[in-house]
Amino acid sequence: MNTNQLSVAVLCGGVGAARFLTGLLQVVPAANVTAIVNTADDMVLHGLSISPDLDTCTYTLAGQINHETGWGLTGETWQARSVLDLYGGESWFGLGDRDLGTHLYRTQRLSEGATLTEVTAEIAQAWGLELNILPMTDDTVRTRITLDTDETIDFQRYFVERRHADPVKAVHFDGADQATPSAAVLRAIDTCDVVVIAPSNPIVSIAPVLSLGGLREQVAARRRSTVVVSPIIGGSAVKGPAADLLRSLGHEVSAVGVAAIYADVAAHIVIDTADAELAARCREFDVTPTVTNTMMTEPDVAAHLAQVAIDAATHRG
Amino acid sequence: MNTNQLSVAVLCGGVGAARFLTGLLQVVPAANVTAIVNTADDMVLHGLSISPDLDTCTYTLAGQINHETGWGLTGETWQARSVLDLYGGESWFGLGDRDLGTHLYRTQRLSEGATLTEVTAEIAQAWGLELNILPMTDDTVRTRITLDTDETIDFQRYFVERRHADPVKAVHFDGADQATPSAAVLRAIDTCDVVVIAPSNPIVSIAPVLSLGGLREQVAARRRSTVVVSPIIGGSAVKGPAADLLRSLGHEVSAVGVAAIYADVAAHIVIDTADAELAARCREFDVTPTVTNTMMTEPDVAAHLAQVAIDAATHRG
Repeated sequence: MNTNQLSVAVLCGGVGAARFLTGLLQVVPAANVTAIVNTADDMVLHGLSISPDLDTCTYTLAGQINHETGWGLTGETWQARSVLDLYGGESWFGLGDRDLGTHLYRTQRLSEGATLTEVTAEIAQAWGLELNILPMTDDTVRTRITLDTDETIDFQRYFVERRHADPVKAVHFDGADQATPSAAVLRAIDTCDVVVIAPSNPIVSIAPVLSLGGLREQVAARRRSTVVVSPIIGGSAVKGPAADLLRSLGHEVSAVGVAAIYADVAAHIVIDTADAELAARCREFDVTPTVTNTMMTEPDVAAHLAQVAIDAATHRG
Repeated sequence: MNTNQLSVAVLCGGVGAARFLTGLLQVVPAANVTAIVNTADDMVLHGLSISPDLDTCTYTLAGQINHETGWGLTGETWQARSVLDLYGGESWFGLGDRDLGTHLYRTQRLSEGATLTEVTAEIAQAWGLELNILPMTDDTVRTRITLDTDETIDFQRYFVERRHADPVKAVHFDGADQATPSAAVLRAIDTCDVVVIAPSNPIVSIAPVLSLGGLREQVAARRRSTVVVSPIIGGSAVKGPAADLLRSLGHEVSAVGVAAIYADVAAHIVIDTADAELAARCREFDVTPTVTNTMMTEPDVAAHLAQVAIDAATHRG
């Protein structure tokens, strides 16, 4: 099968997924790519609807991500925050002035009755993006973290305000039992040639997507053409709390642990060369490993990784 | 009575009131001044709670008003708006980056259950202000404008988006019949020595304040110590649509028209030297005129005007 004719749906979190998508767009036409993005990290702060993972994907693909911070927009200024600081306001979640433009627009459009799916498409189009970026749902799902202290807090409080330093006892997706994937998400999964689970946090980025009514079963039904790229390399995550969360919740912190988590939905896993010795153990879960360089330090590495993942899921690997 | 012992409550709109307050604070100690500010111009845009008149008063007194625009903060940048423009968002209401800090704070605090009275005090304190700045109510009142075309629109749409160019048929204060002045407002009017009605738009700035349940009657009961500074000079307003609105609604566009509008609540009016010949006609409404320079082009003029107004209301003029 020619890569130019393939259609690919990618289950996405934030930074790792955004980098993977950058590579994927080098090997598959943008119009054939659908990013299905976690929205359980979303929040309302200062009255504004904020969608961190959607924005990280959009900004990264638009070439506008702020490389200094790793989030938000390039060329950012902090005037609003400095006035907010004067008042002693909530400034733990960094809202740059340019980034605020996105949140203002999203909030206004949602208040007018637009769906998050519609607003996300409008924002992507304004940045000139040609892939389909979809929130996982138009319903509200919120990740809540129960700490070892038995305190339960919103995800961004855990992740940003407390810098994911607290030991975690449990993770909940409030609203997931009532939420459904959008029609566009269901159609993308139904019609694509390959589903890729991006190298995102399995516990707080991908699990919310798969928790939506019927979605896990739908992906499981096409397990043979679904591939996961392990976000764990050499026993740790490239970025963020994935390793800690996996460990806290009783998973093995390795590519094998990742293969096990997704064994029902993905028949293929791409693991890093550093983890080559784990390949045999992945097979024990009926998950076929492919070993390659997964550290997306350069765009070319991301493109190669995307190609390897597609090849694996189309049985050309 | 020594001016240093007087307490003064000022009914306020935006720019004209802010300038008057600047002068008043030169002749009366800040702790003895309460500004009761119109909030019927407030709106929610992009999910943010925006209070234009409160902010104009606060920013002006803090020495932070943007003299280029006449509203918002000095040292302003427009990064959020440029991104909003990229999306084709609603950008008719100019939200500068620094100004956004105020709206973010206010919205967050209101969402936490704080009253607008509390938030306004917090903001004023952060800017180092020592007077009491009070929203006229903690309830929601919204000015709606019915145009000659019979279309009814929100005040800021009329005022900012359409630059108050449309002929007006009627003005409504939605919610005013259910709204009550805050306890702090009632107490200020009850205990102050002098009430000043600032040189603000009588139709859309002061009328909403007086429309609140019981307030007009309360001021009327102390009419002898209440003074209005005419916002109309030589048949026109210094700024804004006051003249057009007065004319549209059948009022005389002059200091006499102003005296007539407030005749039940203010026994005194300060009119400009340009209108000296109208003094006798003000007396026909049992309103005692004092003639002085009311064009607050310089702080000293504003201070003198404030002193004249107080003297009039304390019967020393």
